[in-house]
Amino acid sequence: MSKTTIEESATKINTLNNYEKDYFESYNNYGIHEEMLQDEVRTQSYRNAIKDCKHLFQGKIVLDVGCGTGILSMFAARNGAKHVIGVDMSSIIEKAQELVDLNGFSHKITLLRGKLEDIELPFEKVDIIISEWMGYFLLFESMLDTVLYARDKYLVDGGLIFPDKCSLHIAGIEDNEYKHEKTSFWENVYGFDYSPFIPLVMREPIVDIIDKNKVNTTANEIIEFDLNIVKLEDLTFEVPFHLKAKRNDTISGLVTWFDVVFPCPKKDVIPVSFSTGPFSAYTHWKQTLFYLQDDLECEVDDDLEGTLSCSPSKVNNRDLDIKIKYTFSAKGAIANIRSTKSENTYLLH
Amino acid sequence: MSKTTIEESATKINTLNNYEKDYFESYNNYGIHEEMLQDEVRTQSYRNAIKDCKHLFQGKIVLDVGCGTGILSMFAARNGAKHVIGVDMSSIIEKAQELVDLNGFSHKITLLRGKLEDIELPFEKVDIIISEWMGYFLLFESMLDTVLYARDKYLVDGGLIFPDKCSLHIAGIEDNEYKHEKTSFWENVYGFDYSPFIPLVMREPIVDIIDKNKVNTTANEIIEFDLNIVKLEDLTFEVPFHLKAKRNDTISGLVTWFDVVFPCPKKDVIPVSFSTGPFSAYTHWKQTLFYLQDDLECEVDDDLEGTLSCSPSKVNNRDLDIKIKYTFSAKGAIANIRSTKSENTYLLH
Repeated sequence: MSKTTIEESATKINTLNNYEKDYFESYNNYGIHEEMLQDEVRTQSYRNAIKDCKHLFQGKIVLDVGCGTGILSMFAARNGAKHVIGVDMSSIIEKAQELVDLNGFSHKITLLRGKLEDIELPFEKVDIIISEWMGYFLLFESMLDTVLYARDKYLVDGGLIFPDKCSLHIAGIEDNEYKHEKTSFWENVYGFDYSPFIPLVMREPIVDIIDKNKVNTTANEIIEFDLNIVKLEDLTFEVPFHLKAKRNDTISGLVTWFDVVFPCPKKDVIPVSFSTGPFSAYTHWKQTLFYLQDDLECEVDDDLEGTLSCSPSKVNNRDLDIKIKYTFSAKGAIANIRSTKSENTYLLH
Repeated sequence: MSKTTIEESATKINTLNNYEKDYFESYNNYGIHEEMLQDEVRTQSYRNAIKDCKHLFQGKIVLDVGCGTGILSMFAARNGAKHVIGVDMSSIIEKAQELVDLNGFSHKITLLRGKLEDIELPFEKVDIIISEWMGYFLLFESMLDTVLYARDKYLVDGGLIFPDKCSLHIAGIEDNEYKHEKTSFWENVYGFDYSPFIPLVMREPIVDIIDKNKVNTTANEIIEFDLNIVKLEDLTFEVPFHLKAKRNDTISGLVTWFDVVFPCPKKDVIPVSFSTGPFSAYTHWKQTLFYLQDDLECEVDDDLEGTLSCSPSKVNNRDLDIKIKYTFSAKGAIANIRSTKSENTYLLH
């Protein structure tokens, strides 16, 4: 069993490009870990999912991808894992080592600093992968790439991934007041015309808490990923949606969110899952909102059909290029006036 | 008159170190400019200060250090400047060029992308320097260094700097509930002992809005900088403070803020100024709070004396190492029990 120490693997950091450095350094502050740990929906879901599957962790080798402060590694160790390897690129792992020692898990948890793709693990195969890899709009920061790499290289046949299912959802919302405030500011900035900023504003998805009462269409699950089989190329996709207006109102934008499901402990038992949608309890992921260029005057049952495409940005592959094409088909007397089609592009960065 | 174009000077960006890249790239998003422009205390103060000194801008050459979207350059051009040079390292300057053109200032404003220290200006000397260089705790991000460099290299004798005076202030506050919530969380994180995080939490100053009713001591101005004469080495300092408790209460921490004053247009006219303190209107700088390790049980007129020292961090010189030493001298019967002294170190990053 070869062992890479935190210090040895840290030397690899010098091979990173600048975007990678920015990304990993953003996790050096304790503040981001405070926010994630205090997100009870997130952390308790992992705790419960692992605890409910205690029998599956007994005597198993577990890999924690992007272990941060080591909370998931300790959950696994506390629930019977034989050994846990936690890997993280950020210097927070030095603090994690202190916590592992302090909480009496030094003999059960090995922490390695480095990019998973670069370092050597002390085990050839692992039985279970645990990871909290999800970003805004599920895929922002694209840490899922690393989980899939770990799966393909290290996971035994029939091994488990926590969580192993996730899905993206979309619905229309009314949010005209804020949308117009946000754009009209640029029309007159202390007497100057700043309108070239308006397309920039419209191009940026907004990560915020969306009041469920603003949702005014049906919701669609647009894509589901099964982590046991999904491939890297599946994370670049174009998928259709078909929403129906639920009231006479205005559709100002589209809200998106994701749901996550953990492996099922036994037959006939409901697996642990959580949703980051507007109808569920707050999580630090909030929701991701895309304003449409148009304000769609809708009546009950009007159709909003289109596609959402998503791919890693070519400039920084942790950013996402997202495109939403839609056709809005109004009904009734002035259907022609209200109906429209459009193509909107966004950069989540 | 030699002229560096935005494209030419941009090539210099490749010579920056990683901390510098992080810093300049943080200004690429429009969001940060939205926040700064919408800070009316900030932007209106610059607008009013320049407008009130219109007679001083007539026919003058003006340098805008860190011009961002070009708002201050346009204020100067609108108020009679002969020519304005705006310099910024961030790619936002390309948007600024669009705004300058759109608003009809192309012939009056020249924008240059690059580090001021590296690029060549189209004028040997300038009559006025304008700059919004202030960071949290006044000196965070240390952009003042660049303003002083510009002053020494380009400003004519007797030239003006907008603003030209700034000062740092300190007072005690009661904030026990949040302070203890913030630290006690780490004592038991889902059953694990995370207490090694507590010293990290205490070491980080908090940038937040402090309710003026929480201030429970007198306030001190601890240092003033006259930008016409201050030297780079003056920005590393150790200064005394002497606060007196104003009520029977607990001093949980020290709140700091800064005030800024612009050049006076005429004798007997009050110059434009603003404060970022808890007794003034909101600004995006908020206040900077330093929790003390102790909770000081104070009675009216108890003395809190000490020193605050500040220097650029050796790791990243835009961060600040701050040290607060204090002696708390209580009066009355159990003065001995309440009195204490301590030394607290912080990193603003």
